[in-house]
This record gives sequence, structure tokens and C-alpha cells, in this order.
Amino acid sequence: MITLSSYLCGTWQAGSGAPTSLFNPTTGEAIAEASSRGLDLAAACEHARTVGGPALRALTFAERGQLLKRLAAALHEHREELLDLSQQNGGNTRGDAKFDVDGATGTLAAYAHFSKELPDATTLADGEGIQIGRTARWWGQHVMTPKLGVAVHINAFNFPGWGMFEKLACAILAGMPVISKPGTQTALPAHRMAQIAVESGILPEGSFQFLCGSAGDLLDHLGPQDVVAFTGSAWTGAIIRGNANLVKNNVHVNVEADSLNAVVVGADLDLGSDTFGDFLAFTSKEMTQKTGQKCTAARRIFVPSDLLDEVVPELVAALERIVVGDPTDGGTGMGPVTSASQLQELREGIDALAAAGTIATGGSEPVGDKGWFLRPTLVVANDPDDAIFHEKELFGPVAVVLPYDASKGPEEAARLANKGGGSLLGAIYCDDGEWAKACALGMAPWHGRVWVDSARAKGQAMPPGMVLPSMIHGGPGRAGGGQELGGLRGLEDYLQRTAIQGFGGWVKAEFGAPEPVEAS
Amino acid sequence: MITLSSYLCGTWQAGSGAPTSLFNPTTGEAIAEASSRGLDLAAACEHARTVGGPALRALTFAERGQLLKRLAAALHEHREELLDLSQQNGGNTRGDAKFDVDGATGTLAAYAHFSKELPDATTLADGEGIQIGRTARWWGQHVMTPKLGVAVHINAFNFPGWGMFEKLACAILAGMPVISKPGTQTALPAHRMAQIAVESGILPEGSFQFLCGSAGDLLDHLGPQDVVAFTGSAWTGAIIRGNANLVKNNVHVNVEADSLNAVVVGADLDLGSDTFGDFLAFTSKEMTQKTGQKCTAARRIFVPSDLLDEVVPELVAALERIVVGDPTDGGTGMGPVTSASQLQELREGIDALAAAGTIATGGSEPVGDKGWFLRPTLVVANDPDDAIFHEKELFGPVAVVLPYDASKGPEEAARLANKGGGSLLGAIYCDDGEWAKACALGMAPWHGRVWVDSARAKGQAMPPGMVLPSMIHGGPGRAGGGQELGGLRGLEDYLQRTAIQGFGGWVKAEFGAPEPVEAS
Repeated sequence: MITLSSYLCGTWQAGSGAPTSLFNPTTGEAIAEASSRGLDLAAACEHARTVGGPALRALTFAERGQLLKRLAAALHEHREELLDLSQQNGGNTRGDAKFDVDGATGTLAAYAHFSKELPDATTLADGEGIQIGRTARWWGQHVMTPKLGVAVHINAFNFPGWGMFEKLACAILAGMPVISKPGTQTALPAHRMAQIAVESGILPEGSFQFLCGSAGDLLDHLGPQDVVAFTGSAWTGAIIRGNANLVKNNVHVNVEADSLNAVVVGADLDLGSDTFGDFLAFTSKEMTQKTGQKCTAARRIFVPSDLLDEVVPELVAALERIVVGDPTDGGTGMGPVTSASQLQELREGIDALAAAGTIATGGSEPVGDKGWFLRPTLVVANDPDDAIFHEKELFGPVAVVLPYDASKGPEEAARLANKGGGSLLGAIYCDDGEWAKACALGMAPWHGRVWVDSARAKGQAMPPGMVLPSMIHGGPGRAGGGQELGGLRGLEDYLQRTAIQGFGGWVKAEFGAPEPVEAS
Repeated sequence: MITLSSYLCGTWQAGSGAPTSLFNPTTGEAIAEASSRGLDLAAACEHARTVGGPALRALTFAERGQLLKRLAAALHEHREELLDLSQQNGGNTRGDAKFDVDGATGTLAAYAHFSKELPDATTLADGEGIQIGRTARWWGQHVMTPKLGVAVHINAFNFPGWGMFEKLACAILAGMPVISKPGTQTALPAHRMAQIAVESGILPEGSFQFLCGSAGDLLDHLGPQDVVAFTGSAWTGAIIRGNANLVKNNVHVNVEADSLNAVVVGADLDLGSDTFGDFLAFTSKEMTQKTGQKCTAARRIFVPSDLLDEVVPELVAALERIVVGDPTDGGTGMGPVTSASQLQELREGIDALAAAGTIATGGSEPVGDKGWFLRPTLVVANDPDDAIFHEKELFGPVAVVLPYDASKGPEEAARLANKGGGSLLGAIYCDDGEWAKACALGMAPWHGRVWVDSARAKGQAMPPGMVLPSMIHGGPGRAGGGQELGGLRGLEDYLQRTAIQGFGGWVKAEFGAPEPVEAS
């Protein structure tokens, strides 16, 4: 049994007391354990603030970008080992594991690339300077400086690698030290990545700490210059956002919660079209990649009522072609869910959905005699307005088909999609540009991202569930009301914006954006 | 006795039950009363969402900018009446009243001006488009669309006019309907301004509602598409931010709380200089304008120890020249505080500060036999690190002088200024550009705005306490962790950012920024 320890205050330390076990979800065997009990989290916060922060802030944005580039390379050297650990602890197929591990290194590399737009300076000019007096001798300039505290990152179990490093990339580039906590149940690859990061010596001491196990009283030690970024359930997100200490100190909290992402089949979509082909391929993939344990997974599929009888069998056929089994077998398309409790919740949830609809494929019966396997499951709703389908999220390979009245126009599809109460993603498959535009605009206020596939994009569309470093990830309401990534927007959580006012020449020279350098 | 009613759901309605009295703080006489008890606030929210929101969103950003311009003009027509009401209910000198009333019309006009940068469209492109596929045929664009809910604005008693319309300007321009609640005790001018706004017919029905009295259960009716912007005490701010319904629904909340703003006299400042002259004039003004009831008022004045004996008498002399009395008298420099409870809190607070320092002028004794008057009060701290001076905010004409050891460099002044735990404003008086830069950068992470006066800016500096529409207003930590204004940044609270992805030509044509029009 491997014991995973935490890297805090410059040393690896194991917690005391009864540890939490980590399992191989394919076999149900315990493979590691972790505990954070008794670890001095107040000291870790101070270590970040007094050692890591000053070291990072002594570097320029450009220099911090170089750290990310080197870190991406260091992690990539261990790719095979990390993929193995990811498969072992996460129940991931090799493709699923790549999605997480390569997502981590890719996002680090992307932020290293974005940093080329940043100055070789420790302060960032935000926008243009502004004349604020009667003459240009009295001048204003917004500047961004790193917050002086610690960035606490609390990640979800489904992306131990990507989740840790997409957050870290933004914080480190902004100049804030990080304490990163993975979801304990799948912490094995995160722990190894943390080891690699520490052993590489790339990040200044104190700028990266790793807490393996419960977050304990960590939030109680935070103050106004600290930041919390959380990814996980809406339920836990609300507990964090409402934490009395965070509220009292106006600690900035970013929440990215799971959501009931929408997929819309446009009215009059030709079922022989490439766009419908994409719908089948992408949707079956988005339901089953990472065994549906993905915050951007397809959950609610809106299909014009008059197409229902044709669409459902085709989607069922696509799902039934996916081989469920040991994810280390090359032919397997979908592995197990990551825990026994996850399986139990899903089984109960499928039964609840089935009571308000019809199971078209799959169901709540587990598969096999060991591990935590389910079949890809599709439920067809009796009534698309039934609240259960818009409120009950099953974090697994389960989606609902909801018929909608396409004669009411794209607004009807958007109205139903928006009943999710705020989602990370809405995907639209539609060859009518006007219809797609109206649907996209109708969904925009309730969705952090709207993805639209059409014949004109043939062969070009990237999968809808893929989160890109250059575009924001987050959504309103149920999805947490937060925002991550989005290129350099992702740094804003970690920077304080300050309006500087003073003598024009001085403000421009000391705080203005550098003059563009002529290409030589 | 005037009864102030609320404008909700298209009609003026008075609440039931025992009303709250509004007073003339100069005389202590009750002059009006208000109650919101029994008003249907759930219906008001729905009215905003179903009537006001759609009407506003049917207009383009440019058209909404025109509404603000017309509203500024409509209010300005009633300027004299509004100044009178402001003096009567707020205890304002005419100058104080102008600061509020002209601040309201000025901010509306400024946002009308800013709207010229916005497209004649209902959607806003955010940043450049981005190639996100292998070719430019797969493309991403961030867009901003108005949130579909209601913007609830809860304002402070000190700026009934400016507070209402600086928030309204941003929400209306963004496309969100407003329910505006003034601080009840000084609601008389706000109520009249609301009447003028309603009677003018400029804003579409449902896009502006006015709640006079307690906020009641208003927050319990809000959901994910709604926004709350609050200005007031840190204590109330924390209650709002921690409200269970707002937390559960991830309702966006912006808090602008009062803070212990810092003033720094730079090391080696020549006391015969223009910069020192500015320090005396601005600081005495910032302590006493609006009788110190200003979120940007000077609270903590950091003076090099070796200059203390010279600076304090000069500042005392400047303060003692200010005539305290009936604010409607032309010669009066400072009127009363706005309530009996405010006076009582200040008296107790002054005694508490005096126990840890020396009163240089003023004191806790009230002035006169009617109304709620105090003298401008300056306390010299025994120990600049004493927590009481950095934590106890007196919302009145009271400041503390804190000596600092200038031999330790500008970092020492910044360290002490930052002990305020997050402030809206830090003002620096310094003729040494390098020193000022180091002090400003040291203060930046803890201050929403840093204002620097120097000889080079002679005669140009605008007063530090003046909040400009073009620059952000807000600050970290104790100051609420929020941000208002800042030009078009001020609209972001009311817009949802959505990443649109799709076929390049379609995304660019439908969601990209319009091509710049050639000047003709």
C-alpha cells in the first residue's frame, strides 16, 4: 500500500490518524492511502505568503511564463508513467488518461505561449491611460499587481492532472503561490505530478505546495489577499462560497461546478448530413469519455419531436457500439466510474430518471462482478419540462433525450436548455445559420460556452467537451458563476486591479504599457 | 409630514405598518417617513425580468447610452430643487449637495459618452476572435450579453443621488433593469430623483423601480441571472455576501464597503512646498466634506516621525478654520452628521481612539444644542501599529495621524497603510518620483486606487476623494472586494461572458467586433 504524502513548507509530510483509501475502480482494490490530519495548514499558508510569493513576484511575467514552459516539459518526460497511474487510479482508458495528462502539459505550454504577450515586468498595465484632469498633466492608468496571499486550488476527482495545472498555470503566471489539493480518491497521478514538479526544482520554493487528503481547516486561515478556486459539485461549491471566514474577509472565490450541459439538434437537420454524423459521434463520445465524469459531458439532448423516432435509435446504436470493460484493454471504449459511492448514486439516479421517461439503452444494472461498471445509458423524457431532467445531474455515462416542439422556433430549444439553471456548455448541431444564431444568443446568458457545428465547418470542429486554454471555462448559476482560463483573462483572479492617478509624465513612464517594439 | 412611496410594478405604492422617520440633521426635526412593509417584492423582481429586461434588451448599447444622456438632462433641470432636498435631509453644505447631485448627472453623462465606443448592436464582442482549430475555419469569439434578471442596487445613505445613478448608469447601459433602494434615512432627494426619472418616461417601463424603506425579503427572490450591487458598511456587506439564497444560486454580488483610507506624507517632503500645501488643503477637505461621511474620506494620515511636530499643528490650523454649523449658511464649511445614532457612534469612537493617542483638535463633545454636530477631529496615535487605528472606522469628520519611521523607506509607509486590511484609496504626497513609485506599488495590492500628488502636477491634481467614472472604484478585503465604474469595465457585472465556437466565417460575421468604419 502506497502512502501519499503532502508537500508543505518545503517537506513531504504524511498526516496522522486513519487515512482515506484510494482504489483501482476496475478491480475495486485499494492501491494507496492518504491523510492530511494534523498537518499545519496555517503554516503552509504562511510559507506560501512569505517564501513563495516574494520569490514569484521577484520574477517578471515573462520569466514566470518560462517556468511554465519548463514545467510542461518536465511533466511530459514522465508521460507514460503518468498515463499508467491515471489508468490505474482513475479507471481511465488510455484516451481518457491522455485527455487529463496531456491536458495538463498542454495548458501549461499554452500559458507559456500566452505569456509572450506580457511585458518583461512585474506590473501589468490594464487598458489605455486616461486623461483625468483638465490637461494631460493629470493622468490615470489601471495596473494589475499580484495579490500578496496564497491561491488555494481545490480540484475535482475527474481531472487530477489537468485540473491541478490549468489552475496553477494562471496563478503562477500571475505571480501567486499555490496550495493545490486534488480530489483524494484519484490523487495518485496528481501526487506523482506534484513529486515531479517539486523534484524538478523549476518552481521557486514555497510557490507550489500540495495537500493530499482533506482540506481540513485550510479555508479558515485565508484572508483578503488570498484566492480560492474550486472545481467540483454545486453542493460543495455553495459550502465554500458561504464559508464564514471567506465571506467576512471578502476572499475572492471562483467556483466551477458541474452542470447539466445541453445538446441541441437543430430543427430540420438532415439526418443524412455530416452535421448529424458529427452529432452522433461527438455526443456518444461526450457521454462516455471519462465514463461521463466530465463537467462538460452531454447531459440533456434536445431533439425536435418530429425527429425523435429517427434520432434515438441512431444514438442508441452509437452508444451500444462502445465496449465497456477494463480500460487497460486496447479495445475498451469506456471504463468504470471511479468509486463505489459514485456507482451507487448513479444507479439510484438512473432509476429516478427512468420513472419520468423510458430507458432507450443501458440502465441501472451494474456490469461485471468486480469494479464499478455501468453501461452508457440514454433515457427519453416523457415531458421535456419535467424539472427532474433539468435539476438531477448524474455524473456518469448517462444522458436524457428531451423532445422539443421545433415549430416554436429556436427560442423553444433555448428556453428548455436554459432550464438547466446555468451550464458550462451548450452544443448546437444545425445547418441553418440564422436558426443557430438565434439559438446561440438565446442560450448565451445561461451558458459559459456555446459550440455550434454545421456543414460549413465539416471536418474542422473540435469536440465540444474540450476545454481550451484560450477560451473561458465556467458558467452562471448552477455551473458556479465562475470563470477560468480564457487566455490572459484567467490571470485576473490572482491580480488586484488598482487605479493609479498622478502627474501624467510620471504615471505614463512608471505604469503605462511599454511602447510596442519595432520588429527588427 | 411627507410620506415617501416606492415605485414598483409601474405604480407608486406606500408600505403599511410603522414607517421609518427621516430627519433634518441640522435641526433634528422629522421631515418625512417611509415604509416598504407589505410591498410585493417578488412581483417587482418579476416585473423587472418580464417587462423591463426585454424592453432594454430590444435596444442597442448605443440606444441605451442615449437614454442615460436624456436622463442626465432631465435630472439636471431640477438641480436647484434637488440641492435643496439634499441639504435638508442630508445636512449637506451646498458644496456637499453638489458633489452628490452633480455626481449623479455627471456619471450618467459620462456613461452616455462611453457608450459611443459601443456598437449599435445588442451583443458585445469581447476581445479578438481566436483560431481554435487546425485552420481558421474553426473559430472562437467571446461575447457579452445582458443577464436576464434584475439588478438590485442597495445604496448607502451618504450619496443618495450619485450612488443611485452611478450604479444605474452601468446596469441600464449593459441592458439590465434596476431595482434601486436608497439608504432610508437620507432618501428624500433619492425619492425626488426617482420621481423625475419615472415622470420623464425616458426609461422603458420596468427597467427602473425604486424601493423606499427596508429591503425586506428582496434578496430571497433573486436567482442566477440577477445581480446585487451594495454600497455600505463592511458589516452589512458580509451579511449580503453570505445570504444563503445568493450563495446557493451563485448570484453575482458586488460589495463596495467603507474603508480606512490612507494618506501618506512622503519622506523629506518640503513643508514649504506646493505639494505640502495640497496635502493641507486636500486632507482637511477630505476629512470634512460630507462631514466625513464619505467612503473615500481621509482616515489614517501617515507622517514621517521627524516631521510630526511641524505637520500636526498646520493640519490642526487648517481644520480649525473650517466653520461648523447650519449647512444652508453660505459661510459654513461643515454641517452635521446625518443621524443621532451616527453622532453617538462617533462620540464613542473618538473616545476609544483618544485612549490610544492624543486629541490634537476636536473631540467627542457635540456642538450646539440641536442637530447632530461635531467638530473636525484629529487624533495623534501613540503607536502607529496599534490595531485600533487600522480597524476602527469612524464614519465622520475624524482622522488619525500616525507617525512612521521614514528611515525604513517607502515600504514602511506602505506596510502601515496596508494594515487597513483593504482600502478604496491611498493618497501620497511626495516630490520624489522613485519614492512615490515604491510606495504606490507597495500599496497597490491592498488599494483599489492610489493617488499621487507632486510638484510636477502643480495645480492639476483633482481631489483624491473624487470618484471618476473612468476609473475603478472599490478595493480588496475590508473595502468589499468589489469593483464599480472604471469606464466600460463597470458594465461587466451585468453581462454574461460566453465563448462562442463554430465555423469561422459564421462566428466572425455574427459575433465578431464590427469592422471599424472609415471616417468620411
